[in-house]
Parts: sequence; C-alpha cells; structure tokens
Amino acid sequence: MFAEILTIGDELLTGNTVDSNSAFIARKLTQRGYWVRRKTTVGDDVEEIKKVIREILDRKPEVLIISGGLGPTHDDVTMLAVAEALGKNLTLCEPCLERIKAFYEHLYKEGYIDDPELNEGRKKMAYLPEGAVPLENTEGAAPGAFTEHGGVKIFVLPGMPREMKAMLEREVLPRLGERKFIQRKLLAEITDESKLAPILTEAVERFKVRIHSSPKGFGKYIGVIIFGEGGEEIEKAKAFMEERGIHFEEGW
Amino acid sequence: MFAEILTIGDELLTGNTVDSNSAFIARKLTQRGYWVRRKTTVGDDVEEIKKVIREILDRKPEVLIISGGLGPTHDDVTMLAVAEALGKNLTLCEPCLERIKAFYEHLYKEGYIDDPELNEGRKKMAYLPEGAVPLENTEGAAPGAFTEHGGVKIFVLPGMPREMKAMLEREVLPRLGERKFIQRKLLAEITDESKLAPILTEAVERFKVRIHSSPKGFGKYIGVIIFGEGGEEIEKAKAFMEERGIHFEEGW
Repeated sequence: MFAEILTIGDELLTGNTVDSNSAFIARKLTQRGYWVRRKTTVGDDVEEIKKVIREILDRKPEVLIISGGLGPTHDDVTMLAVAEALGKNLTLCEPCLERIKAFYEHLYKEGYIDDPELNEGRKKMAYLPEGAVPLENTEGAAPGAFTEHGGVKIFVLPGMPREMKAMLEREVLPRLGERKFIQRKLLAEITDESKLAPILTEAVERFKVRIHSSPKGFGKYIGVIIFGEGGEEIEKAKAFMEERGIHFEEGW
Repeated sequence: MFAEILTIGDELLTGNTVDSNSAFIARKLTQRGYWVRRKTTVGDDVEEIKKVIREILDRKPEVLIISGGLGPTHDDVTMLAVAEALGKNLTLCEPCLERIKAFYEHLYKEGYIDDPELNEGRKKMAYLPEGAVPLENTEGAAPGAFTEHGGVKIFVLPGMPREMKAMLEREVLPRLGERKFIQRKLLAEITDESKLAPILTEAVERFKVRIHSSPKGFGKYIGVIIFGEGGEEIEKAKAFMEERGIHFEEGW
C-alpha cells in the first residue's frame, strides 16, 4: 500500500521555491496510512513529465498525487502531459469552463483583473484527460483531475499551496481508503544517537516495525518514529527498547 | 549539461521534514550554470537507494548530488547503498576515522557527550566507497564522498542542513566547472498571467531561451525568469517582449 508524489515546476528545480507542497501531501498520506515510497520533481516540460509518469505507473503505486502546472500560461503543461502519458486526449470539461468563466467574472467585478474574457490561456484550464473526473478548486481557477489507470489512482492538483491544500482535503482524501499503517513519535533521552543504533537494529529485527531516528544535534533527546501496521506491535517494540535502557518521552 | 539531486530520508517521505536541502542545492547548481533536470527523494532503504541511483546514472547527468543518511544510526545507509549501486566495496578511510575520533573527543571534552569511544555506529561513518575521495565535514562527524562513475560526478553529502551547506560550498562547488547557463529574474507589470502567455510563447520560439512565469496571485506583478546560455540572447528576448507591450521591472 504505497504512494508516490510528483511535483512539477521549473521554480522547484532552480531552487527559487522550496517544495513544501510535497511535504504537506506526504504528511496527509502518511496520516491516512499510506507509505510514501518516493517523491519526484520535474520541470514544466511535457516530455519530462510524460516520462516520469510512465516510470511511476510501472512501479504500480496504489496512489499517485501530482501537483503543479495547471495554470493558464505556456509553461503550465501538466494536464497535457498526464493525458499523453495515459494515451488519452484532452477533452473540454463543460462544467469546468462554466466555473472558470464565473471565477474570472467574479474577479473582474471585485476589481482584481481588467478583463473577464476567456482567452486561450484561461480556456486551456478546462481541458482534462478523457474520462477524468474534475476536482473542484475552491480557491482558484484551475480544476484538478482524478482518474484511474492500471490500478493506480491518479490525482492531479494545482501547485499554488492554498489551492492544492483545499483540493487535497476536500477532493482527494475522501477518495482514499482507511488508515492501515500508523506511526508513533517519541523522544529518546540519550546523549548520542550512535548509542541507540544496536538497540534500534534489534527492535527492527524482532518486531514488524520500521524505526526512524532523527539527529537533533547533540542535545538531550533523539527523535524516534516507530512505523507499524498496528499499535500493538509498535508498543511491543517500544517496551523492548525500554527494557534495554532507553527512556522515552512523548512528543517530538 | 544537466544535474540531478537525490535526497534521502524517511522523515522527508512522511512529511515530518520539508526538504529545504534540495532547494538550496538546486539554487547553487543553477547559479553555477547547471540545469537541474530532476529531484528525487527516497527513504533510508538500501534497495530503494541503489535502485534510484542506477536509474539516475542511466540518464547520464553530468553531476549527481546525494544528500542524507550518513550518520551513525541503523537507518543511515547511504554510503553502503552508493557503494553497492556502483559495484564497489566500502573501505575504511583512515584519515576520516582519525577525524571522527578527534571530533568525538572534542565533544566529550566540551561536555556535550558522555562517552568519546568509537563505537560501531561512529566507526561506520569512516567507510566510503572504494576509490572515493573523502569530503571534509567542518560542522559534524560524517565525511562526504566524491567519486566519478561512467562520466557522472557523484557527490555524497550529509543531510543536516548546516553540514550539507558547508560541504557543498567548500568541497563540491570548487570541483564543478564554470557557469554556462544563466538566468535573469524580472517582474512583469500586468494584471493577469494568462495575458502574457502568447507573448512568452513567441519569445521562446524566436530566441534560444527558456522562460518561466510564476503565478503571484492576482497582484500587480508576474514573476518571469528567462534562462539562456548567454546574456545577449536573454536581453534580446526581453527587448522583444517589451516591444510587445510588457513592462518589466528588476527584482523578484
């Protein structure tokens, strides 16, 4: 039950923007019980995006979340690339076009823009891959899309954080299954992480858990995250490590 | 002349940590004239890391920068995975071991840790892929590594931002070639990005440049980045867009 995240945008590859979107998506998917196995970022380039989508589909994740590149400009090419990667055409979503029209009319009335007309760039946003379900954008113009391909649930979201977050909460999470994988975050009272290593290794071997420990410099605590399919196994692993002399506190 | 970035860490895939490292690395590489074509993130898992390194090497970037997973705990497996991906053994770097020993002795004397001994986790950090050059870590214990494989320059850096940044500046950038690709950031005074689209498209067709425009909501400016191999071509593209009625201001 694993997921992948694909973020798209030249600004992410020049380092002009820190990709906080993929962290937000990863956190939500992890809370929901998904194991995010890989995150990838490519630029606003149809061929690059197609190539990476095909690679991801070959790995057969249960869920693929794509974010970025849905806007009205020449470098917003994500929907076209998704359609081509899936061997589909782009088709006009009539209700999307109506919503986009109303969106710009509203902005015009409020005095935010000079011109409410649907130019080519604005119309472009109403085209989705054939067979995809539009996802409502409550915060902006461009709709997202949901489609399934070869057993992979594919969600295409905008890159503007406010739009992406609202769409993820309202349109994506309700379409995902229930939590099957949980994590427990703890603080281990110990002066140096390297002393923990043999105890963590033994816990991973004995119990059905994965453990991540995070360097916090050389302070009083080491952050430890125990991942497992059930709370019981996680508690057993924790109890085992406590027997070996680790003192845990709650929190992170 | 393109580069790829690989960041490693379970905390990046659970969304517990925002991957600001890859943005920092991307910014430095872009300034240096490299086109960062893809960023990938995988967890602390030897098989996953090996797999993705092999995929990246198949794409033959000029430079691959890897960050994360060099510490002393059981989940710091990056050097092992790099070695295995390249078909090399891990070998002890004696000067690295001496430096690590001195590093912990210093921390012990300063009262930061209870025990200066080189346990297994600490020793592990002195093992690098056969033939790799150690990269000095001025801010922490774990050395990085530099090696070449099939024409790809591979740099392996720590994941702690302070350590990674210092090593990138001191050890990586001096080993990279001169700038061959530059970018010019501008602000376009226009009320809506979609009106820019046809002008940007024409500029890209006429000149040897790539152009990225970044949605800033519906404010007064649209951020525009023009990428090219020389300043002259960028200035021509800018002048062309100005003739078409776009008013640029400097800054971002």
